[in-house]
Amino acid sequence: MSDEGAKLIDGKKIADDIHKELRQELTEWVEQGHRIPSLIAVLVGEDPASEKYVSNKMIAAKKIGIKSQTIRMPVSTSEEELLKKIDELNNDSDVDGILIQLPVPEHISERKVCQAVDPRKDVDGFHLTNIGKLTCNLDTFVPCTALGVIELLKRSHIKTFGKNVVVCGRSKNVGLPMTLLLHSDYRNELPGHEATVIMCHRNTPPEELTFFAKRADIIISATGVVNLIKPEMVKPGACIIDVGITRITTPEGKSKIVGDVDFEGCRRIAGHITPVPGGVGPMTVAMLMVNTLKAAKKLAEVKNGCSDH
Amino acid sequence: MSDEGAKLIDGKKIADDIHKELRQELTEWVEQGHRIPSLIAVLVGEDPASEKYVSNKMIAAKKIGIKSQTIRMPVSTSEEELLKKIDELNNDSDVDGILIQLPVPEHISERKVCQAVDPRKDVDGFHLTNIGKLTCNLDTFVPCTALGVIELLKRSHIKTFGKNVVVCGRSKNVGLPMTLLLHSDYRNELPGHEATVIMCHRNTPPEELTFFAKRADIIISATGVVNLIKPEMVKPGACIIDVGITRITTPEGKSKIVGDVDFEGCRRIAGHITPVPGGVGPMTVAMLMVNTLKAAKKLAEVKNGCSDH
Repeated sequence: MSDEGAKLIDGKKIADDIHKELRQELTEWVEQGHRIPSLIAVLVGEDPASEKYVSNKMIAAKKIGIKSQTIRMPVSTSEEELLKKIDELNNDSDVDGILIQLPVPEHISERKVCQAVDPRKDVDGFHLTNIGKLTCNLDTFVPCTALGVIELLKRSHIKTFGKNVVVCGRSKNVGLPMTLLLHSDYRNELPGHEATVIMCHRNTPPEELTFFAKRADIIISATGVVNLIKPEMVKPGACIIDVGITRITTPEGKSKIVGDVDFEGCRRIAGHITPVPGGVGPMTVAMLMVNTLKAAKKLAEVKNGCSDH
Repeated sequence: MSDEGAKLIDGKKIADDIHKELRQELTEWVEQGHRIPSLIAVLVGEDPASEKYVSNKMIAAKKIGIKSQTIRMPVSTSEEELLKKIDELNNDSDVDGILIQLPVPEHISERKVCQAVDPRKDVDGFHLTNIGKLTCNLDTFVPCTALGVIELLKRSHIKTFGKNVVVCGRSKNVGLPMTLLLHSDYRNELPGHEATVIMCHRNTPPEELTFFAKRADIIISATGVVNLIKPEMVKPGACIIDVGITRITTPEGKSKIVGDVDFEGCRRIAGHITPVPGGVGPMTVAMLMVNTLKAAKKLAEVKNGCSDH
């Protein structure tokens, strides 16, 4: 830790590095005679945040050389129509990764939609079989944000073995997969991280959260609660990963994206910290690309009959 | 807490109560015109501990009135033969619950075997789809020991909401499902328990385990490490659930079953404590019966076309 405070973990830079590596990997893959990997995003309705997320994913895919396409469906789309579209994509041998941008409109069951995607093309890792595999530390598609945080820690040389990690938030797509990865035994198919994990959430009393956070070597916050993590909760030298994304209006009337962490306060105490934006966000996109390339390679193996399935 | 120390949680008594309730439930079910629910155990090889476990399960089934049978296969059984037998049982409409007693001999893949059981008959809750559902807090067959601990807590009026729970051990059949149940949100299909869960394991440093255990309202130990939980680690009034089962030889040369907890030392500090044997063990068996009756009812629904699947 320098006098300036915590070392900034630059998620944008790390994501860019990964994009370059993936571009190289993809080039070699295609040179071996395989077709270009492809990713399809399905966007139902016109939520502006979803538009932005999907657009970022498509830009990254293009940069890497992944063939990508966004299928837009009106908000009035029925569940049946969406399931039919997913089925078409499942059966399309030119498609490697399928991503249904969540949330879907309320009249459509999110669980049914996630469950309809072929587990082999489920680059978001939301199919129950893939969630079961993750829980058992079997090789699978790990949800992108959780995988992105692991990659940030790895590339920033933050050790997890035997360390205390407080995870705030228990969402099925971020907080929970995070704890599943971090506590895991290294003697399994997925790399294990061997941390002691403290799972905190909205019903953890504030004084208990503070008690545990002060003992943590790593704090990961994925709650959407602005200013949840305050400097007095942080152990000197700890690593803080901020997964929160909340749009606020400043006193000057400007719109601004902030995380869960009192960044200015905590950076004086922490050893490492991620900014918002530019921390975890770009990593989510990069991991979607990792998963897409992985899907393409696995599907090609199956086609060539060299899979163990 | 009386002067005598912790209140003993009598798992045998609670399991007996549950057996009586299940017997009543089964009688009503059969009176409604349904056939008697059935449970098949498959035992490969002749491990004496496995023999004993299966025999206990069959005795409980008989007491409740569940039709039960143990299929014995020699240790030389091939994986293919076992998978074929499971397939037969999956397709037998007279079978509701299938239980493959673990461990299977080393030449057989445990994961393949668990994955071969029809998820609707998977009364152990080891199929990946069922594990995925548990992880998402969707209604499913919860692994019996973890479910049994929850039931012990409930019937002993131990509150979990907002409490600190240390879970020692992260096995896929006990420790991990335990944490999945205890930390869960109540706004889901499965009942949520809303505890802050601290996941400890072999790579949690001893001083950290002590630090967290002393803050715990509930300590659940499922490690097989004798005397892991010592009195100086326990907060006065805490509840201690001992899932460990280790056979030791006493200095007098007698064989004896013990748990993970220094029982005599900890009972002076704790508010509630389970003995070993007679604590969690009988509950595992009782929950297998709960799951079998549940499987029978769900399968009957499907047959009558009133399922939502």
